[in-house]
Amino acid sequence: MKNQKTKVGIIGATGYAGIELVRLLLAHPNVEINAVSSVSFKGRAISDIYPALHSIYDVKLGDEDSVIEQSDVVFAALPHGLSEPIAKKCVRLNKLFIDLGADFRLDSQDTYKEWYEKNFDEPELHKQSIYSIPELHRDRIKDAKIIANPGCYTTCIPLGLAPLIKSGRAKLDTIIIDAKSGTSGAGRGLTQTTHFPELNEGFCAYKVASHRHIPEIEQTISQIAGEEVKVTFVPHLIPINRGILATMYINTDCKDENELYDMYCEFYKNDRFIRIMPLGQTVNVKNSKLSNYCDISLHFDKRTGRAIIISAIDNMVKGASGQAIQNMNIALGFDEGAGLDAIPPSF
Amino acid sequence: MKNQKTKVGIIGATGYAGIELVRLLLAHPNVEINAVSSVSFKGRAISDIYPALHSIYDVKLGDEDSVIEQSDVVFAALPHGLSEPIAKKCVRLNKLFIDLGADFRLDSQDTYKEWYEKNFDEPELHKQSIYSIPELHRDRIKDAKIIANPGCYTTCIPLGLAPLIKSGRAKLDTIIIDAKSGTSGAGRGLTQTTHFPELNEGFCAYKVASHRHIPEIEQTISQIAGEEVKVTFVPHLIPINRGILATMYINTDCKDENELYDMYCEFYKNDRFIRIMPLGQTVNVKNSKLSNYCDISLHFDKRTGRAIIISAIDNMVKGASGQAIQNMNIALGFDEGAGLDAIPPSF
Amino acid sequence: MKNQKTKVGIIGATGYAGIELVRLLLAHPNVEINAVSSVSFKGRAISDIYPALHSIYDVKLGDEDSVIEQSDVVFAALPHGLSEPIAKKCVRLNKLFIDLGADFRLDSQDTYKEWYEKNFDEPELHKQSIYSIPELHRDRIKDAKIIANPGCYTTCIPLGLAPLIKSGRAKLDTIIIDAKSGTSGAGRGLTQTTHFPELNEGFCAYKVASHRHIPEIEQTISQIAGEEVKVTFVPHLIPINRGILATMYINTDCKDENELYDMYCEFYKNDRFIRIMPLGQTVNVKNSKLSNYCDISLHFDKRTGRAIIISAIDNMVKGASGQAIQNMNIALGFDEGAGLDAIPPSF
Amino acid sequence: MKNQKTKVGIIGATGYAGIELVRLLLAHPNVEINAVSSVSFKGRAISDIYPALHSIYDVKLGDEDSVIEQSDVVFAALPHGLSEPIAKKCVRLNKLFIDLGADFRLDSQDTYKEWYEKNFDEPELHKQSIYSIPELHRDRIKDAKIIANPGCYTTCIPLGLAPLIKSGRAKLDTIIIDAKSGTSGAGRGLTQTTHFPELNEGFCAYKVASHRHIPEIEQTISQIAGEEVKVTFVPHLIPINRGILATMYINTDCKDENELYDMYCEFYKNDRFIRIMPLGQTVNVKNSKLSNYCDISLHFDKRTGRAIIISAIDNMVKGASGQAIQNMNIALGFDEGAGLDAIPPSF
Repeated sequence: MKNQKTKVGIIGATGYAGIELVRLLLAHPNVEINAVSSVSFKGRAISDIYPALHSIYDVKLGDEDSVIEQSDVVFAALPHGLSEPIAKKCVRLNKLFIDLGADFRLDSQDTYKEWYEKNFDEPELHKQSIYSIPELHRDRIKDAKIIANPGCYTTCIPLGLAPLIKSGRAKLDTIIIDAKSGTSGAGRGLTQTTHFPELNEGFCAYKVASHRHIPEIEQTISQIAGEEVKVTFVPHLIPINRGILATMYINTDCKDENELYDMYCEFYKNDRFIRIMPLGQTVNVKNSKLSNYCDISLHFDKRTGRAIIISAIDNMVKGASGQAIQNMNIALGFDEGAGLDAIPPSF
Repeated sequence: MKNQKTKVGIIGATGYAGIELVRLLLAHPNVEINAVSSVSFKGRAISDIYPALHSIYDVKLGDEDSVIEQSDVVFAALPHGLSEPIAKKCVRLNKLFIDLGADFRLDSQDTYKEWYEKNFDEPELHKQSIYSIPELHRDRIKDAKIIANPGCYTTCIPLGLAPLIKSGRAKLDTIIIDAKSGTSGAGRGLTQTTHFPELNEGFCAYKVASHRHIPEIEQTISQIAGEEVKVTFVPHLIPINRGILATMYINTDCKDENELYDMYCEFYKNDRFIRIMPLGQTVNVKNSKLSNYCDISLHFDKRTGRAIIISAIDNMVKGASGQAIQNMNIALGFDEGAGLDAIPPSF
Repeated sequence: MKNQKTKVGIIGATGYAGIELVRLLLAHPNVEINAVSSVSFKGRAISDIYPALHSIYDVKLGDEDSVIEQSDVVFAALPHGLSEPIAKKCVRLNKLFIDLGADFRLDSQDTYKEWYEKNFDEPELHKQSIYSIPELHRDRIKDAKIIANPGCYTTCIPLGLAPLIKSGRAKLDTIIIDAKSGTSGAGRGLTQTTHFPELNEGFCAYKVASHRHIPEIEQTISQIAGEEVKVTFVPHLIPINRGILATMYINTDCKDENELYDMYCEFYKNDRFIRIMPLGQTVNVKNSKLSNYCDISLHFDKRTGRAIIISAIDNMVKGASGQAIQNMNIALGFDEGAGLDAIPPSF
Repeated sequence: MKNQKTKVGIIGATGYAGIELVRLLLAHPNVEINAVSSVSFKGRAISDIYPALHSIYDVKLGDEDSVIEQSDVVFAALPHGLSEPIAKKCVRLNKLFIDLGADFRLDSQDTYKEWYEKNFDEPELHKQSIYSIPELHRDRIKDAKIIANPGCYTTCIPLGLAPLIKSGRAKLDTIIIDAKSGTSGAGRGLTQTTHFPELNEGFCAYKVASHRHIPEIEQTISQIAGEEVKVTFVPHLIPINRGILATMYINTDCKDENELYDMYCEFYKNDRFIRIMPLGQTVNVKNSKLSNYCDISLHFDKRTGRAIIISAIDNMVKGASGQAIQNMNIALGFDEGAGLDAIPPSF
């Protein structure tokens, strides 16, 4: 019955992660969207801003407080620095808060300050927040009040590295991550870089070895390794809409691809959203597009003794809104894949 | 219960329309895919050919006869000229046959021969086949045995023209259709035209005033007009994957957009998959992508007295496989939109 | 010798038409660029803004007055409404002024006011300005002081229509122009429409029957026709960087393509930048990319008696900066094609 | 005077490297194209195959022997395995032979056999052939009879690595090369991979650690290092037409970017086609498009002590046909940059 559905709300619904939450949650069997907000477009119909929703979801955008009030689960998809006061209200009102921004992702205030040039305003809140890539941290979030949902690179990369690092067979100071992202990762805001005639038919790196996702990646894999790991990380921009692909290089004492393949299949044997590609195949971002899958292919350079691991996700689904829903599903005891069963189109 | 689902099969499952049928039917609540076939890839797993399906649908491709045998509804997505024998078998075995090819689309054998250089092999079968764009022909197909499913241009264009033609207010000898198609419409077969470096960053017309969809478009709108109508039709190729957009020009005695808007809203008031855009908005193919919607925007050139109607669909969904499922739903008494509720992504 | 080269300057050098002027004029055998200006980036090196010019042209951007002062020929590539004071200074100082903006394109002040909501500030100046598509107006500009350089649509479309209209065999009230433009036509300024994730994989019409190029197109073809002609014009946006393609529909008493072909070959027999494609071929924007060519293909719909003329140019070369140089060449007595001999790349 | 121009010919003129040679050589001040050949299109006009050349270069395609006979310089742009007999004829007839294929690139017959599964048919010829990236091997080719012109990756990557390797400050067993290529690198031949709807909006690696350019890259940098160097090399396919970008990771005892910058500026101080980007900028393939430039940007990851070097070229110009012309210019004593002064467009 409709009135048994969980009431959810979205703060920042007109950003790309926000509108993707709308699209996915509208099709979720266990929830209903009760309220959406936007600072930029308050008072306008959401389908005015995104005509793809015309006749499907024409509700008016409200404000942050009305979303919190009307929802049992509050998602925020905002630039960093805005989530702590929202989290505070949600905790006080006993609402589950799921943050797609960066504010609760880093455990260490020092690290946060180093990369985001800002202190924690509410250090106490951070103790109640749980960072979760479900395949790695599923057990943590059963009773979470605040869930820090990882970003796109920081999901794709640790999922690709975790089994090899966990195995103890990686040389930890040799990790190099060459990542490539579709353009929706840059968000809805206008920049010269994402102006069509300048981005189209181009390809470039950006924030070379200085991207803010570095400490988040290192935090996750250091926990797995049981020691501090540093990585070299270079992101690039692909002239496509969606998708992240990371090519990762690590020295290892594994002997061939088969060892890697067995290791990864075993590690992820209970994870429906991880697809280890058959040996000989190479992942392509298009094959996980619009789905919650993380595809991983395993390669080995015998000539140099390096494992080459390639993983790909849809940056807006598994890399943002889909994973946030997956986290919600676990926290609320729904089926982990509820609302996330979209089959990626082949073209 | 699963065993109450209708058994469906797909002949030609590895072409683009075929694999789109697979994607959509896998998510359909009332059917299960029992068999799929491919001449080119018989014996191989379908996910080998389309890795997007890896771990989701890994069944082996069989042959045509096994599909017919194992299915109560048989879809065929084949080049023209191959469907009559399949239809014959299906009719004999009392299976519903839904043809995504061109063989049963034209009523007149003479017209078929003129444009396809081939006779009907089984003229009797053609009397049992029903051509159906559901919004225009819904009532015909309740008891159909053979459904001729229209192509992409031939869905998008008549849906855009029907209300104005039906109103009697169009000057019928002034219809000009300038259509633009994404590249998946050209199919999976390799051609120099669709070779990436040659198609990308290009734009051109093709088959100027000579495309085989002309007689099919004229057949549909002549029936609505109650007299023979001829159109000028020029298709173009857009360097995108999916979508068809048709810009249609017609002299009319309407006075402004408002008249058109009211006329269209009334005509399609019971059709959930037709979205008449608010006046002032202009349809974009991206907003119906991956959905079964046909979006229509209405414009009027006061300076010359011409209506300008723009309609857009996803050529692979409403223009092929989605519409075939919509036709099946009606023919079998399912909810007309079953399996077709995907919300188009905004980017 | 270098000091015999004509000194030219560019006002608005960091917009797209401006930077294209820089690229083309740097390779022109008879001129040297003496000064460039930009309001937005004054004081910065031009190669800072456009790194493609790094080590080739690293000069600093100055202001408008310094450009005028240092140049014998002044190009302005500015938004409309800014050119009249520049023209005034140039005329006073006896410099040739070539305006790539809209200010001097329309003869009638009433028409200008209707479409641009602004009066002529200097009506006297307009009497000294010459509008020139060289193939149609070459003779006018030998002694011009102010040259109004046409825009992209307004070059591509009249070149496609001129021979048929001049022949007297077109039915003048049936002209429909369905045009498609690459995205550089929208300029360097940021808009949601040209934000990569929203424009890519989309296609739409814009300013349906209301684009400001309509009066300019009508002005040119009415002069050819010797009577007032009205057209229906609908522009669309193609997700590519460069190129305009116009598909034009006109009722005619011509009997076939051959008549059209002979008519066009004869009309343009002395115009090196017009290429009439062999019958049976269809123009593609990519084949004139980065060149000053206008490619035209001729088609005839026997079923409806309509000529279909397709013409294509590079909107930034023949549709802007290349044509401005062609106009300069004629005005200064250089070879008409000087600096414009680039061969379009095939991919 | 025209009859003093050197006569050149192109074998394999309708492949992508061949047609790019045509485009560039038509604009070369010191040569004229005397003959072109194609096995697939013999007897047809070259502008029939590539309409971009319509009215510019409409000559008929002949055969290999007629090209050799009519030319003083013979370029071959063929799949590997076909160049030795051509080289033999050219040497006998005392023509300069410039091979854009792979046949003469590897010094070691064993290595060639390992990667190409074929022996040298004419080992003596190989002793007369000179492999040349001009910036690294300029002095070798003054009197060459056979010039082996490097491929795209094998130009872009050694140019990016050479200064650091030459300096002795690189840890040679840590070189990882993550390269990305536009699609023209795959050539004109049709494949499912380069079929537009499958490549567009996708991104993938291919031939992971097994691409045939590996031994060629290692040959060049081992010569510079003075010892055998092995690299890990993973190429990827970008959905754009032109351009290669390589991101290279190397442990070094350099301390920061400044050291790298000075080292590279010094190394290439006499090379007009190498552009070292100002520190802080990051190369983008679009900025060298359609030009013979190799752009290099230098980065340093202080956290891990790795140099990150990014280099980019147009794969069809500096990575194929432009470099072949540069080699010809040096061998014949022309200005090294003759015919290669195209300025890259900014969009």
